[in-house]
Amino acid sequence: MDAGFNEVIIRLKSIVGEKYVILEPDGYLYDETPEPIRPGASRDVVIVKPSNPQQISEILKLANRLRIPIFVRGGGTGLSGGAVPTRPGIILSMERLNRILEIDADNLMVVCEAGVTLRELLEAIDKIPGLSFPPHPGDESAQIGGLVVNNAGGARAVKYGVMRNYVVGIEAVLPTGEILQLGGKVIKNATGYDLLHLIVGCEGTLCVVTKVVLRLIPEPGATYTLVIPFNNPENAIKAVPEILRSGVVPLAIEYMDIDAIKAGEKVTGKRWPYRGGKAHLMVIIDGRSEDELIEKSELIEEAVKKHNALDVLVGTSRKEQRDILDIRSLIYEGLKDETIEVLDVSVPPASIAEYVKRCQEAADRIGITVLHFGHAGDGNVHQQILKSGLREEEWRKKYEEFKEFAFRVAGEFGGYITGEHGIGVVKKEDMRKTMPDKAIELMKAIKKVFDPNNILNPGKVVDVE
Amino acid sequence: MDAGFNEVIIRLKSIVGEKYVILEPDGYLYDETPEPIRPGASRDVVIVKPSNPQQISEILKLANRLRIPIFVRGGGTGLSGGAVPTRPGIILSMERLNRILEIDADNLMVVCEAGVTLRELLEAIDKIPGLSFPPHPGDESAQIGGLVVNNAGGARAVKYGVMRNYVVGIEAVLPTGEILQLGGKVIKNATGYDLLHLIVGCEGTLCVVTKVVLRLIPEPGATYTLVIPFNNPENAIKAVPEILRSGVVPLAIEYMDIDAIKAGEKVTGKRWPYRGGKAHLMVIIDGRSEDELIEKSELIEEAVKKHNALDVLVGTSRKEQRDILDIRSLIYEGLKDETIEVLDVSVPPASIAEYVKRCQEAADRIGITVLHFGHAGDGNVHQQILKSGLREEEWRKKYEEFKEFAFRVAGEFGGYITGEHGIGVVKKEDMRKTMPDKAIELMKAIKKVFDPNNILNPGKVVDVE
Repeated sequence: MDAGFNEVIIRLKSIVGEKYVILEPDGYLYDETPEPIRPGASRDVVIVKPSNPQQISEILKLANRLRIPIFVRGGGTGLSGGAVPTRPGIILSMERLNRILEIDADNLMVVCEAGVTLRELLEAIDKIPGLSFPPHPGDESAQIGGLVVNNAGGARAVKYGVMRNYVVGIEAVLPTGEILQLGGKVIKNATGYDLLHLIVGCEGTLCVVTKVVLRLIPEPGATYTLVIPFNNPENAIKAVPEILRSGVVPLAIEYMDIDAIKAGEKVTGKRWPYRGGKAHLMVIIDGRSEDELIEKSELIEEAVKKHNALDVLVGTSRKEQRDILDIRSLIYEGLKDETIEVLDVSVPPASIAEYVKRCQEAADRIGITVLHFGHAGDGNVHQQILKSGLREEEWRKKYEEFKEFAFRVAGEFGGYITGEHGIGVVKKEDMRKTMPDKAIELMKAIKKVFDPNNILNPGKVVDVE
Repeated sequence: MDAGFNEVIIRLKSIVGEKYVILEPDGYLYDETPEPIRPGASRDVVIVKPSNPQQISEILKLANRLRIPIFVRGGGTGLSGGAVPTRPGIILSMERLNRILEIDADNLMVVCEAGVTLRELLEAIDKIPGLSFPPHPGDESAQIGGLVVNNAGGARAVKYGVMRNYVVGIEAVLPTGEILQLGGKVIKNATGYDLLHLIVGCEGTLCVVTKVVLRLIPEPGATYTLVIPFNNPENAIKAVPEILRSGVVPLAIEYMDIDAIKAGEKVTGKRWPYRGGKAHLMVIIDGRSEDELIEKSELIEEAVKKHNALDVLVGTSRKEQRDILDIRSLIYEGLKDETIEVLDVSVPPASIAEYVKRCQEAADRIGITVLHFGHAGDGNVHQQILKSGLREEEWRKKYEEFKEFAFRVAGEFGGYITGEHGIGVVKKEDMRKTMPDKAIELMKAIKKVFDPNNILNPGKVVDVE
C-alpha cells in the first residue's frame, strides 16, 4: 500500500487492538490452489484479525472510504485462488470469530460464527445425541463462512445436498459497513428477494459473512461402503441412474478410473478391495438397521448387474470403509506436487461417461496424464491434470490445450466449468465459456449494488473495474 | 392505457397473432387472494398469449420502450395478489407455454415450459415408473413458472424441501428483452453468482420464466398417515422435534387446532378419526415396505407419547389417508366466503406453540375467530382469520389489529411475515416489520439492475418508483 499506509495501520490497531494487526504476511498469502496455476500474492498487505462484526464494520468503512482492497481469509482451503491477496490491501482473517454460539436441539439448528472450522463444528455436533450435519466437502480445516459463500459440496451431496440446503440464516457485513441479518432460525421464508441465497455462492465478493444458522438432521444411522468395478466407464456411469431409480438414494456415488485408484493406493499404502476393472463406483449407503442396509445393498447389486458390474464388494466394518474412503480422499493430496490443476466441471450426470471418454482421448492425443474421478451422482467430474514428467514449457502448453478442450466439451453437454471449486481468480478468464455475457453483466451490476467501490475481494469472480 | 393504446394492440397482434390478443379481461384480473384484502384490478388492460420466449422478448421490448406495465399471469392460484393488474397495462398469460418437453429418466430430470400446470406435470411423471416429483403446494392448477418464482412449498417440504431444492435450470426473458439460460441439467454449479436462486422467489418481478429444468427423485414408496391428538398445543408442538430426532423424517408434519379440523369436517362431510383433543398433528411417513412403515410408526408413537399424546391413529389404506388429507386440505376452501386472510408467518419451529398461544389469546381478546393450522415441521403457521359474523366495519378493524399483533410477535421470535405465500401486493406495507431497511434497499437496487424501467409487475414485492 502506498501513502497513508502508516495511518491505516494505526487506525486498524485502534479498531481491533495492537496485537491483532500483523505485518508479516507469511501463512496468509496462499490457499490450497496448486502452485502451477495459483495467482501471485502481493506481500504489501496488512493482516487484521477482528473478533466481531462491529470491528469488521469499522474496518470495511475505513477501507471503503480509502478504497483499500479487502481480502477475506477463512481456512485457506480453496482451490481457485479466492483467498489470495492479488494486490496490496488488507487481509481480513476470520480466525477469531470462532465461537459455536448454540446447538439448538429443538429447532435442529446450530448457530456459529463464520470462523469456526468444519472440524470444530462436527466435533461439537457429535456430542449431541441424535443430531448430524451431513455436508462434508473434504478438508475439515475449512471455515463455515467459506463453506457458505462458496456453497461447498462434497461427496455426500447425492442424498443430503450442498451447503445451500443447510443455510437458513446469515449475518453479514456489507462493504459499506452495514451489518445485515438475513433469515434466522426459519426454514421457509418468502419475504422479498432471497438475498441469503445470492450470498451463498458469492465467494466473499458481496459481503463478509460473520455468523450463520445451519440446519441439522437426525442421525442417519450406520453406513455400508460398496465398491463396484466395471470393465469400462460407460457401464459404470450408466449404472448410476439405474441405482437411483432402484429407490435407494445413496449418500455418495463416486466414480474413479483405475489410475486414480492406483494413485490413492500409493499415497495411503492401503489396498483397494478389488484388483482390475477399468472404472469403479464407490457407493455409500446409510440406514437405521442392518436389515435396511442389506436390503439397500441388494437393490444396488441388482441395478449394477444390469450394466455388467464385475462384482459388488460390500465394506461393512468401520475399518474396511475407512480404508476405501481414504484411498478416494487422498488422490489429490498424494499427487499434489505433480498436479497442475484439478478441474471440477459439472455436466448432466448421464453425460459423464461420454465426457470422460472424450477427455481421456484428448489427454492421450495431447500427451498429458489426467486422472478422472468425482461425484458421479451429481455430474461433478474431478480431473486431476499431472505434469506427467514433462518440462514446464511443455506441460504448460499441454495443460492449456487440455483445459480448453475440457471446458468446450463441458459446454457442449450443457455443463459448466465449475461445480464446487468456484471461479476465484484462476477460472475468471474461462467463465464466459459456459456463462452467457448477459448473465455476467447482471452479476457485475449486482456486485456494484453491494460493493460500489469494489473493495471486497476485487478481481475475483466478476470484474467490475 | 392512454394514447397509443390502439398502436400497442396492433403491435401485439403482429407479435402473437390476432386471436391471442384479448380485450375482455374477465377471468384474468384476480387470483385466489381472499376478496376482502385483494387489490383492485384495472380493467384497462390487454391480455396477450404468447407461445414462446421469442414472442415474450418482443412484447417486453415493446413494453420497455413504451413503459407499459406487464403483469405475468400463471395459474392464478396466488394468495397475495401477485397476479392482479393493479394499474393499466398488459397481462402476459403463460397458458400457451404448456409443453412438457422431456422427462429425462437418465438424469432424473424433467424439462417443461413455464405454463405447464402442476397437475399436468404430475400426470406425466406418473406414467414413468420409478420417478416422482415431491413438492405439492396445494392447488394443482398452479403453473410451474409460478411455483418457481414463488418458491412454492407445501406440506411435504419437511422431508423433500421446497421448489428451490428442485430447480436446476431456468430459461427467462429479461424486461429488456434478452433471453437468458441459467443452469440446465446440472446439479452442482459454482460458476459465478447464483442468479437462478435469486430468480427463485422473485415473484415474477425480475424476469419472465419461460422454461425450467426440475429434478425428480426415485419413487418414495407407500405412505401411512398418522393422526395424533393432544390436550394442548404446547405438547403437540413439543412433540415435533422429538419426532424428528427419533430418526424418522416424515414427509409432512401438520398442526391443526380442533376448530380447524371441525371446519374441514364440515366442508368435506368426512369424519376425522379421533373425537376430542385440542390440537392434532397429522404426520405422513413413507417407506419402501410395510415393515419399514410399521417401524417408523412405532418410533413416532414412542416419541409423541413422551409429550402426552392422547393416541396415535394410523391410516394405512388409501381411503383412510385420503379422507384425513381432504379434511386438512379443504379447511381454507370451505371457509373461503367467511375468510378475510390466511396469514402464513414463518417462525422457528420450536416457537410455534408459544406463537400460537399468544395469537389465540390475542384473537380472544380482540374478539375475532382465527383458525390455526399449518406446517409444524417447517415452522410455517397458517392462520385463517374469519369475519366471525361481524359487520364489515368491525371485522376490518379487528383483523388489522390481529394482523399487526401477529406480525409483531412473529418478529419477536425471529420470524418473518410470510413463509410461502409471498409478499405480492397485500403484504408490501408490512414487509419492513420483519425485514431490515437495508435489505429492502438492496432488493430495490437489484430490481433496477434487472428491470431499469420498472415494467415487470410494478408495485409488487419491492417498490422502486
